[in-house]
Amino acid sequence: MKIAVIPGDGIGVEVTAEALKVLRKLVPDVETTEYDLGAKRYNETGELLPEAELDEIRRHDAILLGAIGDPRLVAPGILERGLLLNMRFLLDHHVNLRPARTYPGSKSPLAAAPDIDFVVVREGTEGPYTGNGGSIRVGTPQEVATEVSVNTWFGAERVVRYAYELARTRRKHLTLIHKTNVLSNAGRIWTRAMETVGAEYPDVDTAYCHIDAATIYMVTDPERFDVIVTDNLFGDIITDLAGAVTGGIGLAASGNIDASGKSPSMFEPVHGSAPDIAGQGVADPTAAILSAAMLLRHLGREEDAARVERAVEADLKSRGGAPIVTTEVGDRIAAAV
Amino acid sequence: MKIAVIPGDGIGVEVTAEALKVLRKLVPDVETTEYDLGAKRYNETGELLPEAELDEIRRHDAILLGAIGDPRLVAPGILERGLLLNMRFLLDHHVNLRPARTYPGSKSPLAAAPDIDFVVVREGTEGPYTGNGGSIRVGTPQEVATEVSVNTWFGAERVVRYAYELARTRRKHLTLIHKTNVLSNAGRIWTRAMETVGAEYPDVDTAYCHIDAATIYMVTDPERFDVIVTDNLFGDIITDLAGAVTGGIGLAASGNIDASGKSPSMFEPVHGSAPDIAGQGVADPTAAILSAAMLLRHLGREEDAARVERAVEADLKSRGGAPIVTTEVGDRIAAAV
Ligand SMILES: CC(C)[C@H](C(=O)O)[C@@H](O)C(=O)O
Ligand SMILES: CC(C)[C@H](C(=O)O)[C@@H](O)C(=O)O
Repeated sequence: MKIAVIPGDGIGVEVTAEALKVLRKLVPDVETTEYDLGAKRYNETGELLPEAELDEIRRHDAILLGAIGDPRLVAPGILERGLLLNMRFLLDHHVNLRPARTYPGSKSPLAAAPDIDFVVVREGTEGPYTGNGGSIRVGTPQEVATEVSVNTWFGAERVVRYAYELARTRRKHLTLIHKTNVLSNAGRIWTRAMETVGAEYPDVDTAYCHIDAATIYMVTDPERFDVIVTDNLFGDIITDLAGAVTGGIGLAASGNIDASGKSPSMFEPVHGSAPDIAGQGVADPTAAILSAAMLLRHLGREEDAARVERAVEADLKSRGGAPIVTTEVGDRIAAAV
Repeated sequence: MKIAVIPGDGIGVEVTAEALKVLRKLVPDVETTEYDLGAKRYNETGELLPEAELDEIRRHDAILLGAIGDPRLVAPGILERGLLLNMRFLLDHHVNLRPARTYPGSKSPLAAAPDIDFVVVREGTEGPYTGNGGSIRVGTPQEVATEVSVNTWFGAERVVRYAYELARTRRKHLTLIHKTNVLSNAGRIWTRAMETVGAEYPDVDTAYCHIDAATIYMVTDPERFDVIVTDNLFGDIITDLAGAVTGGIGLAASGNIDASGKSPSMFEPVHGSAPDIAGQGVADPTAAILSAAMLLRHLGREEDAARVERAVEADLKSRGGAPIVTTEVGDRIAAAV
């Protein structure tokens, strides 16, 4: 197993170390190559994602990423476009897989203490994320800027299919989230994909909900969701909200997956680099460790993945209100798997 | 005072009757003209917003709208584009004003029972709502669809200015919600508007937050917000979530405002026509009544507006868990103002 590791910035470095600790315990002969990409590197060298490095990264089975970004070093947008999104696009990470679940002891901000267990399949290579659009008369009273959401049947069909397959392994319920009543051109593609692909999955029930209404359900009735499929931007929004209602994005893991298997898929916590708490050893590495579990599952090691998840579950249960020590969480989970 | 009334569909008709009950109590000589627009009309005649009717509507001081839509009669998208959005665009309703607050006794789904009181200033005539974009090769495996978000300095500057003015009358804190790290063309305009206009409001503190992070704050720390300014789509999403965390969009009122005063502004509950409970007399008319209060404030009747709000507050407090009878809520508030 050859893993490319991109610890990145801030707490990314700290939580990745713990994820690797757990990974090495389960796969002692794992080969890892570390890539120094992110805010520090860009700030020092101006380099974002050199082609030679990307070519090397491609020759791994999967990628483990910590977190990228440091607003003190790099203006917003540069690392996102030049590194994070670039990687998603160049490696065709069209399935952005984001499970959301509560654990025994989860600290959901919802009074109902819901029992949440759903997975968001977020499209990762289209929508308003393509970088299409532009500006004219910048800085003047006549400035006009466009952002073009690009949507293709090719792009929607494959993630909708992935979502139906996933639903089949779960509670067999798939919800499309979009805004088809306003974004009707893009909506037409997504709706047709749900219907056309759905004909092959008569055992999977479907539902539709507008993104605005979806945020309401997320706080009033999140248990209704099993698998959600949605576009790139709506997926960005709804998964942060999902992370929040399950008790904090400190637990939210994600996979950026090329379902064709041509490029290595990338696994990362949903949280950012949190420069405010970096270097203090207090970041929760659980999301990074759960991302490593997703990586294991993706590489066919279902049993190992389940072990990590069980260990995380037990750890969360035993934690109580004790403050988090990053390395100790990693130690406990590595010992338990 | 001349008010154009568009009761619309479903519970829109029922809640508008109660809002008018309260309005007539405070302004006995109010002149109202009713316009039959919405799903039923479209289904019977194919008409959405005939020019002659819009011209008539223009000659009123303000518009009171109930709710539009009935999925059993009209496919999604038609009334939205042809009636609701058309009205916002043709009447230049660039400020979509949506207050969010908890009342004593509010049933927030959040365990912290927060004390929420903020206002969202949502841009109403630009962004991905313009209907720009289109589709090619519809229905084929080569279908491509675009949705173009159009953003202008003209459009952003005026709502940002409105928001600063509003913040000055409140707790003097203004948050921009956007996704500037990905939608950087549009983001550049909004960021510059915040800075340029902000120079004239040194007494107003500002903050910025990405739309994804904003959904987290909305459930973990909604009290941080005072005035929010945001684009059309992000505003759509965040205001539904705001309605949910304050205890249900049955209480959320809104104004579609032409701040130049050239066109009449329109006031409406945020909720929809709810065909599932229509005709049963159980819809909560509070959001419609609070929309009438916003209408009164807009027309300079601050004292009347405050009376309605106080009456609503008292009514909510006294309700307990009793089921809602639409006409009785209207009667109680009309009696109290
Ligand atoms: C950092 C940013 C570009 C990214 C996104 O918007 O996709 C992040 O919010 C995420 O959800 O992974
Ligand atoms: C009905 C729809 C077009 C509308 C919108 O998206 O603006 C609604 O959701 C709203 O928030 O007023």
